[in-house]
Amino acid sequence: MGAFKFRGAYNFLAQLSPEERARGVVAFSSGNHAQGVALAASLFGVPATIVMPTDAPAVKLDATREYGAEIVFYERETSHRDEIARGIAGERGATLVPPFDDPRIVAGAGTAALELLEDAGPLDAIVVPVGGGGLMGGSAIAAHGIDPAIAIYGVEPKSGDDFVQSLARGERVTIAVPKTIADGLQTTSPSDLTFAVAREHGSTVVTVGDDELREAMRFAFERMKLVIEPSGAAGLAALLHARVPGIAGKHVGVIVSGGNVDPVRFAELVAESRRPSEYPAKRRV
Amino acid sequence: MGAFKFRGAYNFLAQLSPEERARGVVAFSSGNHAQGVALAASLFGVPATIVMPTDAPAVKLDATREYGAEIVFYERETSHRDEIARGIAGERGATLVPPFDDPRIVAGAGTAALELLEDAGPLDAIVVPVGGGGLMGGSAIAAHGIDPAIAIYGVEPKSGDDFVQSLARGERVTIAVPKTIADGLQTTSPSDLTFAVAREHGSTVVTVGDDELREAMRFAFERMKLVIEPSGAAGLAALLHARVPGIAGKHVGVIVSGGNVDPVRFAELVAESRRPSEYPAKRRV
Repeated sequence: MGAFKFRGAYNFLAQLSPEERARGVVAFSSGNHAQGVALAASLFGVPATIVMPTDAPAVKLDATREYGAEIVFYERETSHRDEIARGIAGERGATLVPPFDDPRIVAGAGTAALELLEDAGPLDAIVVPVGGGGLMGGSAIAAHGIDPAIAIYGVEPKSGDDFVQSLARGERVTIAVPKTIADGLQTTSPSDLTFAVAREHGSTVVTVGDDELREAMRFAFERMKLVIEPSGAAGLAALLHARVPGIAGKHVGVIVSGGNVDPVRFAELVAESRRPSEYPAKRRV
Repeated sequence: MGAFKFRGAYNFLAQLSPEERARGVVAFSSGNHAQGVALAASLFGVPATIVMPTDAPAVKLDATREYGAEIVFYERETSHRDEIARGIAGERGATLVPPFDDPRIVAGAGTAALELLEDAGPLDAIVVPVGGGGLMGGSAIAAHGIDPAIAIYGVEPKSGDDFVQSLARGERVTIAVPKTIADGLQTTSPSDLTFAVAREHGSTVVTVGDDELREAMRFAFERMKLVIEPSGAAGLAALLHARVPGIAGKHVGVIVSGGNVDPVRFAELVAESRRPSEYPAKRRV
């Protein structure tokens, strides 16, 4: 469904009992987790209800509906999606599928790093986008199972630097809902689980600005012929703009995911960005 | 450089003598052949001059320049690009690199089908875009070298059906410069070489409309996360809209190339197209 979120959702649903599956699943998500749960649920024949914000991208709403899930809307600024989702789960006896705060979700996400290492061979570092930290945590666990020396870097939006702040303070920090074009990275704090995994695995988190995300999207479109949504471009943006320390001359893998963005919205986002040919020469790739 | 055209250009330049390389190369092209020749020339250290129409997409002009080629402009409607290119070649003693009418170009293009078969395993049919017919010819030769039973289908724009007309009449037909969004498929007739190869290999050519190209571009963007320019979408469009006869239940490979289109132009092209979710159910993929 165009993002790594399917991996965690599928792994989660695969481990539910037949009785739990029969009662259905519920999730809250601005988009990719919604689609991941909806697709995994349809593959297992499980009824799915997804709580989505009214401003979720149309392309993500459409896809979630197409996978057969029921959508319940909420206002991002005024209501609490987790409470709505828990309420629905309680009423129906359904299981809540959390977006990242669960070992099954984290483990599923980590299979992306596993496949990256299988395809690319030995790597010195892996760079991934960070929302709730599930992909970063799963990647660290999977990668370090193969080679404990691999450095794990997470990238979050400048305005949504809850993970950077949390690692600096040594405790979970909660921020206001960040304003960023990276709609998949608008989390307000790490979870206990993802924070603990990041500390245990020595992960480093850096930030990129929205302009840098736009340039990375344009770079991928023009030079790699790949469609990346703003959230999925975080790792690539950090590399293109030299935000990741200590990797010069190293063999670095980047997880680029997802790609769910409306073509017109895509063009609006990148229209004002510099073309790759306008980058300073030293940044050319 | 985002299109199969590099393959033919590289193969052509690889077979020039050191003396010929020193005198440089000249090509005329609306875009992808220009970039292919420019990149191949820069890799061989050969000076390249490219004759391009004033209305060529900016993204293709930029890339051609970035690869170090000199660009000479012409008016598509009023001047003859091949005469201009031959004039320059004559003055400088440079070698003209034709866009498709040369065995070295056709053979280079055919490596795309070779790699498709290596990656995908045995196929019943291969579907490719058709401009001058170099990719179709090369694909037929390469594929039939492996398995003579593979059916070869070419796809050209409805308004530029010179190959369809030529095969129907049994002789080369020349049409007016076609009006189509597929700027890479605006050829006006097959060449002697590509027409002969198409007949010898029993290739079938079908057509798609510009609306169908737009829908295929949108489908690839939304569902495959791939950027395809209008010309590169021809094969995919023909499959999505059931324009290729006799392939139901068959194992079919499609060559999707190129992907050189400005993001804003891309959005303009697909904005009016149907989303994949709006296709009739029987056409769903």
